[in-house]
Amino acid sequence: MPPAHPFDDDKLKEECGVFGVVGVTDAANFVALGLHALQHRGQEAGGIVTYAPDHGFNSARRFGYVRDNFTNQSVMDTLPGEIGIGHVRYSTAGSKGNTQLRDVQPFFGEFSMGGAAIAHNGNITNAAALRRELIERGSIFQSSSDSECIIHLMARSLQRDIPERMKDALRRVEGAFSVVAMTRTKLIGVRDPLGVRPLVLGKVADGWALSSETCALDIIGAEFVREIEPGEMVVITEAGVTSHRPFNARKPRFCIFEHVYFSRPDSVQGGRSVYETRRQIGVELAREAPVDADLVCPVPDSGTPAAIGFSQESGIPYAMGIIRNQYMGRTFIEPTEQIRNMGVRLKLNVNRALIAGKRVILVDDSVVRGTTSRKIKEMILDAGAKEVHFRIASPPTAWPCFYGVDTPEREKLLASHMSEEEMRQHLAVDSLRFISLDGLYRAVGEAEGRNNAEPQYCDACFSGEYPVAPSDMIERGFQVKTAAE
Amino acid sequence: MPPAHPFDDDKLKEECGVFGVVGVTDAANFVALGLHALQHRGQEAGGIVTYAPDHGFNSARRFGYVRDNFTNQSVMDTLPGEIGIGHVRYSTAGSKGNTQLRDVQPFFGEFSMGGAAIAHNGNITNAAALRRELIERGSIFQSSSDSECIIHLMARSLQRDIPERMKDALRRVEGAFSVVAMTRTKLIGVRDPLGVRPLVLGKVADGWALSSETCALDIIGAEFVREIEPGEMVVITEAGVTSHRPFNARKPRFCIFEHVYFSRPDSVQGGRSVYETRRQIGVELAREAPVDADLVCPVPDSGTPAAIGFSQESGIPYAMGIIRNQYMGRTFIEPTEQIRNMGVRLKLNVNRALIAGKRVILVDDSVVRGTTSRKIKEMILDAGAKEVHFRIASPPTAWPCFYGVDTPEREKLLASHMSEEEMRQHLAVDSLRFISLDGLYRAVGEAEGRNNAEPQYCDACFSGEYPVAPSDMIERGFQVKTAAE
Amino acid sequence: MPPAHPFDDDKLKEECGVFGVVGVTDAANFVALGLHALQHRGQEAGGIVTYAPDHGFNSARRFGYVRDNFTNQSVMDTLPGEIGIGHVRYSTAGSKGNTQLRDVQPFFGEFSMGGAAIAHNGNITNAAALRRELIERGSIFQSSSDSECIIHLMARSLQRDIPERMKDALRRVEGAFSVVAMTRTKLIGVRDPLGVRPLVLGKVADGWALSSETCALDIIGAEFVREIEPGEMVVITEAGVTSHRPFNARKPRFCIFEHVYFSRPDSVQGGRSVYETRRQIGVELAREAPVDADLVCPVPDSGTPAAIGFSQESGIPYAMGIIRNQYMGRTFIEPTEQIRNMGVRLKLNVNRALIAGKRVILVDDSVVRGTTSRKIKEMILDAGAKEVHFRIASPPTAWPCFYGVDTPEREKLLASHMSEEEMRQHLAVDSLRFISLDGLYRAVGEAEGRNNAEPQYCDACFSGEYPVAPSDMIERGFQVKTAAE
Amino acid sequence: MPPAHPFDDDKLKEECGVFGVVGVTDAANFVALGLHALQHRGQEAGGIVTYAPDHGFNSARRFGYVRDNFTNQSVMDTLPGEIGIGHVRYSTAGSKGNTQLRDVQPFFGEFSMGGAAIAHNGNITNAAALRRELIERGSIFQSSSDSECIIHLMARSLQRDIPERMKDALRRVEGAFSVVAMTRTKLIGVRDPLGVRPLVLGKVADGWALSSETCALDIIGAEFVREIEPGEMVVITEAGVTSHRPFNARKPRFCIFEHVYFSRPDSVQGGRSVYETRRQIGVELAREAPVDADLVCPVPDSGTPAAIGFSQESGIPYAMGIIRNQYMGRTFIEPTEQIRNMGVRLKLNVNRALIAGKRVILVDDSVVRGTTSRKIKEMILDAGAKEVHFRIASPPTAWPCFYGVDTPEREKLLASHMSEEEMRQHLAVDSLRFISLDGLYRAVGEAEGRNNAEPQYCDACFSGEYPVAPSDMIERGFQVKTAAE
Repeated sequence: MPPAHPFDDDKLKEECGVFGVVGVTDAANFVALGLHALQHRGQEAGGIVTYAPDHGFNSARRFGYVRDNFTNQSVMDTLPGEIGIGHVRYSTAGSKGNTQLRDVQPFFGEFSMGGAAIAHNGNITNAAALRRELIERGSIFQSSSDSECIIHLMARSLQRDIPERMKDALRRVEGAFSVVAMTRTKLIGVRDPLGVRPLVLGKVADGWALSSETCALDIIGAEFVREIEPGEMVVITEAGVTSHRPFNARKPRFCIFEHVYFSRPDSVQGGRSVYETRRQIGVELAREAPVDADLVCPVPDSGTPAAIGFSQESGIPYAMGIIRNQYMGRTFIEPTEQIRNMGVRLKLNVNRALIAGKRVILVDDSVVRGTTSRKIKEMILDAGAKEVHFRIASPPTAWPCFYGVDTPEREKLLASHMSEEEMRQHLAVDSLRFISLDGLYRAVGEAEGRNNAEPQYCDACFSGEYPVAPSDMIERGFQVKTAAE
Repeated sequence: MPPAHPFDDDKLKEECGVFGVVGVTDAANFVALGLHALQHRGQEAGGIVTYAPDHGFNSARRFGYVRDNFTNQSVMDTLPGEIGIGHVRYSTAGSKGNTQLRDVQPFFGEFSMGGAAIAHNGNITNAAALRRELIERGSIFQSSSDSECIIHLMARSLQRDIPERMKDALRRVEGAFSVVAMTRTKLIGVRDPLGVRPLVLGKVADGWALSSETCALDIIGAEFVREIEPGEMVVITEAGVTSHRPFNARKPRFCIFEHVYFSRPDSVQGGRSVYETRRQIGVELAREAPVDADLVCPVPDSGTPAAIGFSQESGIPYAMGIIRNQYMGRTFIEPTEQIRNMGVRLKLNVNRALIAGKRVILVDDSVVRGTTSRKIKEMILDAGAKEVHFRIASPPTAWPCFYGVDTPEREKLLASHMSEEEMRQHLAVDSLRFISLDGLYRAVGEAEGRNNAEPQYCDACFSGEYPVAPSDMIERGFQVKTAAE
Repeated sequence: MPPAHPFDDDKLKEECGVFGVVGVTDAANFVALGLHALQHRGQEAGGIVTYAPDHGFNSARRFGYVRDNFTNQSVMDTLPGEIGIGHVRYSTAGSKGNTQLRDVQPFFGEFSMGGAAIAHNGNITNAAALRRELIERGSIFQSSSDSECIIHLMARSLQRDIPERMKDALRRVEGAFSVVAMTRTKLIGVRDPLGVRPLVLGKVADGWALSSETCALDIIGAEFVREIEPGEMVVITEAGVTSHRPFNARKPRFCIFEHVYFSRPDSVQGGRSVYETRRQIGVELAREAPVDADLVCPVPDSGTPAAIGFSQESGIPYAMGIIRNQYMGRTFIEPTEQIRNMGVRLKLNVNRALIAGKRVILVDDSVVRGTTSRKIKEMILDAGAKEVHFRIASPPTAWPCFYGVDTPEREKLLASHMSEEEMRQHLAVDSLRFISLDGLYRAVGEAEGRNNAEPQYCDACFSGEYPVAPSDMIERGFQVKTAAE
Repeated sequence: MPPAHPFDDDKLKEECGVFGVVGVTDAANFVALGLHALQHRGQEAGGIVTYAPDHGFNSARRFGYVRDNFTNQSVMDTLPGEIGIGHVRYSTAGSKGNTQLRDVQPFFGEFSMGGAAIAHNGNITNAAALRRELIERGSIFQSSSDSECIIHLMARSLQRDIPERMKDALRRVEGAFSVVAMTRTKLIGVRDPLGVRPLVLGKVADGWALSSETCALDIIGAEFVREIEPGEMVVITEAGVTSHRPFNARKPRFCIFEHVYFSRPDSVQGGRSVYETRRQIGVELAREAPVDADLVCPVPDSGTPAAIGFSQESGIPYAMGIIRNQYMGRTFIEPTEQIRNMGVRLKLNVNRALIAGKRVILVDDSVVRGTTSRKIKEMILDAGAKEVHFRIASPPTAWPCFYGVDTPEREKLLASHMSEEEMRQHLAVDSLRFISLDGLYRAVGEAEGRNNAEPQYCDACFSGEYPVAPSDMIERGFQVKTAAE
């Protein structure tokens, strides 16, 4: 299966997207479209569950792209009904690199008052402890996914209806989560008290939709209504939406990396255009770290909006110095050792005629391991560039995420053990500058920058300040940041 | 199989790419990489032939992408040897929409002095007549491809070696062709006398490569040496390159649409950067057809360089007003009629927050049937744009191509029966302007514009002036342009 | 997937075969071979679970034949370890005709003291009631299979080790079952108190094997040790076999249809050669229902041993009057209506030259719906037979089985509403005779015939006397036999 | 793909079956059924060609079983028309073990007077010389199959219609062949002058059928009309059958091995029931080579009719001492070395309870390499047999066949270098006897045995007397039998 982004292996990866709909004919078709629009949030596998009075609950779970699995009439015919939810995933905490189909969400459980299905974006930080407790009491887990804890907690709740059981269950769960769930008649959406992961509500004809991002409302022609609020649970039937507050109130801290990289540029998060935010990051970068050069080139495709902003602020012309191959895919067999940077060449090619003899500013969204940045720099120099200047649209990524994002171990993050100048030397470029944390906050609309006493976003990957203690990880030996760090 | 370009169904399509290599270990791996870089020239199928002294000639021909077929060790192991050629194709004249594997090139023939394989980019305009003659003499055709004529003409030639037989055969052939062929020891490249289709020569380690475009030399780390000249045949062995001139000399007329759309922006054709030419088209367009507006947005991805040029010349900010879905693919089942423009939404989404309330210039590479332009305009208006202005980076496409490009029948071309103003009304946009033919010639470096007495390029799709009479088509009733038209 | 028997659609079908092994290198390879030898007991799907200290529990579950799924090195490499169990299935009570992969056994559960996997041949007659109770208590079922109840009962047991939890669970279960299970170190086998379904123990090198039939011991070169006794549980480690008696003692009643049809002729059940028993049924039939004729022909392949016995006792020559096509498979498209008996012709052909003008005795194992018998009779007459006499190697099948065999609803069984003479008229043959119930008992070695007061076998399908009340079925409205019937 | 016969690797294999039909609706469905019935003559691949006025000639060629490829509505829909031919093949002289789809028949050629397709059972003994000549003249071969020569000879014929061109072509061909061919309106059948390979004519409704064997007439409900005579060509239209005699008359010599093994037992060849001939071989064997024993057991399945005959003549009881696994297939991974005779165990199991302590006569159809016979003997002894006596239903196979049968090289044939007694010692059995050549001739109805001056059949595999000189093979160094041998 081809990765969609040329450097998927050197990026942080969102682990999931969720989508649900109620009150529309052939709900599964809507869910398939919604998941297709959310494919960038998870390419490994996808699943859909629907319910129809005469057919009960039905599900289909498949590895691979939504477009390859859920466009087939014979598959879609097995998913009748006017209510349905779906999930795309990259990989969960449970089974990195060895996912089995039984790990693919949504999960389903039959309770004495009827069935429910649930799909989850985020990560449960006390899942190991919960799992031990549940097994001790006689629950049989079918997957290695932490999200399955929620359904077992619900099965054991003493409450009488499913929304109440879900509240009961989620109060035991720590971490970051946006949940979309369904019963036979109700579509349910919940965001954790900090609102780390996104979830939005839309209106489509006589029905309603829930989605990780607004771009998936657009594809089904739904109107954006509002975000589900941090700590809110909505229960939606054809009659309308009711709002619940199952958790103690906390100050929200939305994931700032959704703005930097995860969300699609045509989505709106927290009332802000993601594209415009990224362009603004480029503007801030040009102010913070100007450099004299001939061309501003994005590293395709995610560096493009920031590169446009950088060009506009600096007045240096914007140009496509690196061309992406549209047909990326599996690994070719290397013909000989003479071809250096094979992996990169399959995905990108330098526009030699443009680059030769020029001083080039490359704008990229982030540096994780640094392996890709190094290869790109070499390609640019091979093509005859006179100078190479990296400008990075996020602060140095120095800490792993435990809230639903796939990050390398801390020691593999270049910024965990190198200063900006050490990284510049490591990459052997003429200059390397990251946007400052305050600059990033300004770009997302916080004119005063970061409020260090009470930060407005979750920025643990940059700051090491974790708003929810990663308790399972601490149990396994992870060292959280000390005051000294 | 997913199309690579969002509007493949409303574009002219190049029908083929060819690649060959000699004098390298495991030639097939190089050919696979070269074809991968040429995938935009043909996505339907691909084939590779190699020769090794102990294994003879071997071939593999498959439907689908190069990356999906020729990355498999077990397939590549069947293709040993230090010489090989390959082909990617969209569809040939013989069997539109119903290709069989036996129609996939390269074609192979066993002659009394040994075997030869041949791959062809272009179209033979007298193929039907040649085929009739060959069958009458007892040749058995295995495919419906016109290119097979060449191998049968070679089989019946009285010449004693294969290059001479190929000259003999190609002298009987009319039309546009760039041919890459191989014997047990020789790699052969030929361009037709007008040089309509491209072909370039590269040096890779101790060996040589032939390719439709320079971007495929880049991917294998080969150095660009020169173009094969119109009317030239090169015969390459490990010892070196010899040049032959089998045809009567004519004034060359390279296909101008290679600059507009077919070639990859990172290729160099006729000594000019394709990217830079396209950017320059945008500059010319901004001069010829300025308009007051807030944003210049490309129709992704092919309109991008011209949009950058338009923005730079006009000073109006460049912006990504339309976002492309990276995971395009098969057709989804439409959920309900309410979702208009379904096909477009799967591929593109308007960046609503950016577009709302703005006057937008959309830059696209061409208008063929006009169906896509119409849908894009509707999406832009639905998102709240105040005005929509189309600027097209090629003149009106009013005539079909018979030289290796897949074009609709003449009456389906919007420009065949509408003036620019009629098209504007048909598309219902605030303004619509195509670049002039002279403006296009200026952008490709002809400062004086088109030499109407003796045009410098083949521009039949715009002008209706066919440099080689399409004799099979005339026999079937096609009306060539009269003086009056 | 091709059915193995030409008339699978008009036969009673065994629903499962189980196999397990401990103490051998690469246990999965042994399990695959054992399941291959038991394929006749279930063709729909198969599964294998193994355990290795460094790799934990692993499983592979697939639709289709063992030979197609478990011969692949890459699959078998995922199943390391010296202990393993496996299962082949036709279909379970839960999901006739709509099996999903999650319904395929073995089932696995993680308990607080470690994991266990379990595979089951038979049927639980109180599964619906157990399932309701378990869901009420908070168990989440992952399959629609009744066998999953066992693993949930085990999860909730208060006992401290897995064999004790299994005893606890099985004491709640009613019905017929032969269970093979495994922990990290123990292979466990259990037969229900009546011993309805078979289970045998074998010795292979330094290890041990459990199997539904002895033919699967032969294929792995194991030595047959003994049968697991009705009501016995064996717990096997590399150290040896220990025997337990978890149930109250009852008089055994082995399934007599295992002798008639289910078991392979080269197996030994209850100390008797299945082949020899079937030959003996033919001898008894020839004594009970002689007829003057020219040829004795088996309906291939299951009627063959009884036909040999009939021929030997009657002195009428044995002949292959019906030839089976070795390449049976999917359904062909019927060319025209003129071809009657299409389905049968694909599988069988009458040996016309042999049959024409002859009086033919056809020996078949059973009559279920009678549809196939009718078609065969027509083919024989079409080929010119003078007379057709059916002799059936089992008594009339008048009652459904609820102990792990797939039977049509009672009203679809020809013998449920027709006498022998009515069936003869329905089939329109010259004579039709079934072996008597006493004759069948004599053939299996009960010289005195059936002990009606205390029958030696389960023969509910013939007699309607169910040794375990089918309580779920009674709840759904099934009428058990009354004294009058 | 599972082989149909348990010891395909130690049997002579028929290489092809042909079938054709004209004058019926949806001819392809009839062809598919006919090929299914002929599947035993070739399991590697199959092909069908049809013609319909509005759709022209269409073909489908696939690897694998007919039942898996030609039962699919979407495939069959591509084959419209009332005339069609088909072919199943094992492998041809051209490409043993490395067949490509382009080698799969029928072959098709477009001539100036229209197209023709041709399918061929047999072998052309002067194919190499013909091919050289045709390439020299400019023919391009698309396959490595010798049968393709026929279509090229036809393409170069000066005759005006296709049947005449076919006569012209076949007069240049040496060897054994039964050809089925078609034009747009004519179904054509030809047998070589010796009639080595079979071909029969049937009537089906208003149309006609040609087939290698009568069993394929039975499956489509066709009536057997007559055999095509050796040296005869029939041209069939809806109007009727006309007979031609294109060759000089010769005395026929039908392949005697069709009676021994190749043909299905329910076919009639040369007016004789194949089943009855095989039973009669058993009778002759019992007379020629009696032995005192307890049981007569066939080696399944091909030894069965001869074993029945042997039992009936000798009075020794017939029994199924060896049980065949119905689910043979791919190769399993061997668990350990302890399991000897792995390959055999997957396919066969000895009926231990029956065999133990007995003196057993095993009846098999032939001994080729002897490898299988040796393994079977070991299994029988392992099961406790007291004595093992082999009786073989054909004379020693000492010479390769060059007329369309796949035989090992001469030195690999056990009988090429061992006497009967040496073979007995090699197999280490108590006795081993082959039927005599005269005994075999008696069983096929020649009361006087073989006429050595002018043999009635082709028996080259036993006698080394080749009725057509294998000229290509002699050129490659094969030594034909000398008078002394």
